Amino acid sequence: MSSPRIDLQAALEQIGADVDAAFQSLLSVPVDARSRLYDAMRYAAIGGGKRLRPLLVVAACGLFRVARERALRCGLAVECIHVYSLIHDDLPAMDDDDLRRGKPTLHRAFDEATAILAGDSLHALAFEVLADEATHEDPFVRVELIAELARAAGPAGMAGGQMIDLKAAELELDIPAVTRLQQLKTGALIGWCVEAGAIMGRLPPEGRKSLRGYARDVGLAFQITDDLLDHEGEEGKMGKRAGKDEAAGKQTFVSLLGPERARRQAELLVEQARVHLSGFGEEADLLRAIARFAVERDH
Amino acid sequence: MSSPRIDLQAALEQIGADVDAAFQSLLSVPVDARSRLYDAMRYAAIGGGKRLRPLLVVAACGLFRVARERALRCGLAVECIHVYSLIHDDLPAMDDDDLRRGKPTLHRAFDEATAILAGDSLHALAFEVLADEATHEDPFVRVELIAELARAAGPAGMAGGQMIDLKAAELELDIPAVTRLQQLKTGALIGWCVEAGAIMGRLPPEGRKSLRGYARDVGLAFQITDDLLDHEGEEGKMGKRAGKDEAAGKQTFVSLLGPERARRQAELLVEQARVHLSGFGEEADLLRAIARFAVERDH
Repeated sequence: MSSPRIDLQAALEQIGADVDAAFQSLLSVPVDARSRLYDAMRYAAIGGGKRLRPLLVVAACGLFRVARERALRCGLAVECIHVYSLIHDDLPAMDDDDLRRGKPTLHRAFDEATAILAGDSLHALAFEVLADEATHEDPFVRVELIAELARAAGPAGMAGGQMIDLKAAELELDIPAVTRLQQLKTGALIGWCVEAGAIMGRLPPEGRKSLRGYARDVGLAFQITDDLLDHEGEEGKMGKRAGKDEAAGKQTFVSLLGPERARRQAELLVEQARVHLSGFGEEADLLRAIARFAVERDH
Repeated sequence: MSSPRIDLQAALEQIGADVDAAFQSLLSVPVDARSRLYDAMRYAAIGGGKRLRPLLVVAACGLFRVARERALRCGLAVECIHVYSLIHDDLPAMDDDDLRRGKPTLHRAFDEATAILAGDSLHALAFEVLADEATHEDPFVRVELIAELARAAGPAGMAGGQMIDLKAAELELDIPAVTRLQQLKTGALIGWCVEAGAIMGRLPPEGRKSLRGYARDVGLAFQITDDLLDHEGEEGKMGKRAGKDEAAGKQTFVSLLGPERARRQAELLVEQARVHLSGFGEEADLLRAIARFAVERDH
C-alpha cells in the first residue's frame, strides 16, 4: 500500500516553501496606512500550516500534466480561503481561540477589527488570483475554477458548515449529521482542490466521479484524524488548543464512535480513497501518499 | 442641467424591487441547520438601502444596450459586496453600530458569529453570481468582471480603505488623505459599477477614461454628501447613527472644509461628472440623474 516512489516529506516541504514565496510576492506591504492590514495578512498566511490544500491541488493537477506554476496559483487561491476561514473562526465571537499554527491567533497578535479585515482581504484575493490569466490562458477554465470555489466557500459549503458547527453543541448530531457538517465545513474546499486539477486538465465533468470520491473519502479521513488528535490532545504538536470540541459538548466522530472505531473508519476511508484512484497509474502516487498522510500524521 | 426625460424616483423604486426579488430567489432558505445563516443574509440584504450601486450598474450598462436582466446580475453581485461590508463594518470590533437601514444591525438582531458568517457568505455569493453564464455568455467578460470586483473589494480597494478609516482618528488626515481614503473605501466599488457597464458592453479599456472620471467624481460627491448628512444628523431619515465620525474625532470633508465649502465642492464634482458624459447622448441621462441625486438626496 505504500508509495515508495513518493517522498511525501519532501513534497510537503517544497509546497510549504512555494506557498510562502507566493504569499511574499502577493502581499508586498504598501507604504501607507494600509500597511497594518498587509502585515496582518502576512502574519496569518506566511510560515505555517501543513499546506495540505495546495499540495492536493498540485497532486491533482499532476494527473493532467498541468504546469506546476499554474497549479500553484490554484493552490494559493484555496490557501487564501483556508487562512481567511481560520482567522474568522478563531475570533472571540466564533471559537475564541488564542493559538493557531503554534503562535497567537491574528486577533490576539493584532486586534479584532484588523483580523476581520485581513480575513475579508484574503477572501477577495483568492478570486483575484484565479481570475488572472497567469492561472490559465482559457477564461472558461478560470471562470469555472471561480464558480466552484465560490460555491465551496459560501453558504452552501464552508460557511454553511461553520454555521452548523457553531450550533453543534445544542443540535446533538448523530453520525450522518456530523458527516454532513464536515462535508460542508472542510470537505467542500478539499473537494475543490481535487476538482481544480480536473478543471485545469480539462477533464469533462462526467469523468470526475472517481476524483470526487477520492476527495470525499480523504476529506472525511482527514477530519476523523483531526478529531482523534484533538481527543489525544498534544497541543504542542498541533499548534492549537486541544480537546476543545469535547469541552464545548460537541459531538465528533470520536465521541460518537469511540477512538478505536473512529481510527478503523479513517483507515477504511483511506483504502476507499485509493480504490477511487485505481484507474490511474503512477501519476496518482502523490494523491495516494496524501491519503495515507491524512491518517498517519501526528499534527 | 436637469434630465427631464428621467424619472429617477421611479428608477430607484424599480431597482429596489428588482434587487429584492433577486435576493429572494438567490437566498431561498434550506431546511437544515444552515437556515439561521440564510435568515441572517436575507435580513441584511432584502428590503433596505438606496440600491445606488445596482442602479449605477444598470445605468452604465444602459449606455451599451446590455439586457437589463444581465445588468441586474452585476448589480446583485456588487450589492452582495456592499451589504457584506456594511455587516462587517457595523460589528462591535469595527464601528460598533446598532442601527442600519432603519433597523437593528445584523449582529444586534442575530449575533456576532452569525453576522460574520453572513457577511462572508454574501462575499462569496458575489463571485458565484458573476461566474454564472447567465451574467454573460462570454467567459472572458465574466472573468474580467470578477477580477475587477475582487480588486475593488480587497486590500487594494474597499478593505484597505476601511483599514485606514479605522485608524483615521489618530492619523489627522488632510484633504488629499481623506480623498484617498474615500476613493478606496467607497470609490473603488462605485468605480466598479460603472466599469461593469463598459466590460459588459465590450468597450475596450482605452475607451473607459471618461466613464472612470464620472465614477470618481460621483463617488466623491456622494461621500461629501454623506458627510454633510452625518453632520446635520437626522438619524430618522438616514436610518443609521448620525454624527459618529465627528464623535470619533475623525476628519471628514465637512470638518476640513466646513459645510458651505463642502457643499460647493460636491456641486462642482457633480458638474464635472456630467462633463465626463458629454460624449454620450440621452442614453446617459440616467447616469446624469444619478449624479444629481448623489448631492440632492436627504438620506
